[in-house]
Amino acid sequence: MLNVVLIGAGNLGFNLYREFYKNEKINLIQWYNKTLDIIKFAEKNTSIIDDLKNLNHADIYIVCVKDDSIKKIIKKINFEGLIVHTSGCRSIKEVNSKKRRGVFYPVQTFNKTREVSFKNVPICIEAESKKDLYTLKKLSNYLKAKTYIIDSEQRKIIHLAAVFVNNFSNHLYTVAKEMLASKKITFEIFHSIIKETTNKVFEIGPEKSQTGPAKRGDNKTIEEHKEILRNKEYKDLYLIITRLIEKKYE
Amino acid sequence: MLNVVLIGAGNLGFNLYREFYKNEKINLIQWYNKTLDIIKFAEKNTSIIDDLKNLNHADIYIVCVKDDSIKKIIKKINFEGLIVHTSGCRSIKEVNSKKRRGVFYPVQTFNKTREVSFKNVPICIEAESKKDLYTLKKLSNYLKAKTYIIDSEQRKIIHLAAVFVNNFSNHLYTVAKEMLASKKITFEIFHSIIKETTNKVFEIGPEKSQTGPAKRGDNKTIEEHKEILRNKEYKDLYLIITRLIEKKYE
Repeated sequence: MLNVVLIGAGNLGFNLYREFYKNEKINLIQWYNKTLDIIKFAEKNTSIIDDLKNLNHADIYIVCVKDDSIKKIIKKINFEGLIVHTSGCRSIKEVNSKKRRGVFYPVQTFNKTREVSFKNVPICIEAESKKDLYTLKKLSNYLKAKTYIIDSEQRKIIHLAAVFVNNFSNHLYTVAKEMLASKKITFEIFHSIIKETTNKVFEIGPEKSQTGPAKRGDNKTIEEHKEILRNKEYKDLYLIITRLIEKKYE
Repeated sequence: MLNVVLIGAGNLGFNLYREFYKNEKINLIQWYNKTLDIIKFAEKNTSIIDDLKNLNHADIYIVCVKDDSIKKIIKKINFEGLIVHTSGCRSIKEVNSKKRRGVFYPVQTFNKTREVSFKNVPICIEAESKKDLYTLKKLSNYLKAKTYIIDSEQRKIIHLAAVFVNNFSNHLYTVAKEMLASKKITFEIFHSIIKETTNKVFEIGPEKSQTGPAKRGDNKTIEEHKEILRNKEYKDLYLIITRLIEKKYE
């Protein structure tokens, strides 16, 4: 059993709350947010607070606030417990060196309105002592997540690469949806190819999955696509990724 | 029951062969390829030929060859049946106007070595007569695919947009994998986020799924990412997609 305090009620905070609440091995003793309204619904299940002076003792304090608020919030935690932030791009040093510090970063995309299970989600942990690393591993195991021991430098790269994998590919879907809409075609027409593309990536990896005009050096099709692309920014985007693929597979 | 002749043994040709062979309502009467070796394995199930002079009569001739070979191949088909090509970017006019012509374009990514079911795959059909359109719809139904009646102009846009959705997002995964490899981190760490990203897209669409530093205007993180990105082309790619997201959600 682990006693945890959750600090923050953003996308990750909400999803951790839902998970902790139903998890028998995790005892959520407090949930802090600067405005209580948002977490009011949880008061029948845990103590909710909006003042860090009212914090109680816990094994782990999990800070899920905006990156720029991490330092400020942590300064106010006057307990011996392990303090972790959940940011992908901030160093473990964001936590004051006088504290027992660590990082607990789930590589996943979260929304408040969408319940995401932590089962099989990779969680990157970092801590300065073996004991604290073991505690974080235990927390991750309780969530049935997959644990990776990752230092701050590695974590930064994961966070940047995740922007390419998640945010950018999602935007490519948005661009494609717009193109279809201009000809009154539904985006559903791409659901099947998106599924197959990712299944292939999981099974044989992205390099071997690469197909398309740039991969096979089909310049005629590339020229045609350039002609159809009236939007200058979309054309630039098309050209830059096409060049990258050509270069990779030349 | 439909009698079909399959012309070509590329990625799509192979997958259509597999599907036709096991489909009780489709009678594959011939499979043509310019070299017989590749399709030799199929001779116990169908007539295989390497000379178009030996073609037999069929309801539909399905031409799955390289875009630049479509016209040349079709010239050699001297039968009354419906002739369709399977290209995403070529007009129905690639088929000689004296023929009963059409298009049968599955919006999917195919490999020879990977068997893909046509079930639920969107198939874009085009033909000049209602009767031929009906025949193509029947073929598509037999495959349990989803049929869309799409003209040549629309199909070009679908093909271009599919490059963004499939080829380009796949390359973003490749770039991300490279970044991880530079810090000895396995790409498996992204399987879970890729699954969740696409599930979200299917359920709420890509616009509402957008997250990340560009979406929330987190310039500090963007500056940090720019610093980490040593590869100039990756930096350009990062900047152009970041700008597009900022513009879309400003």
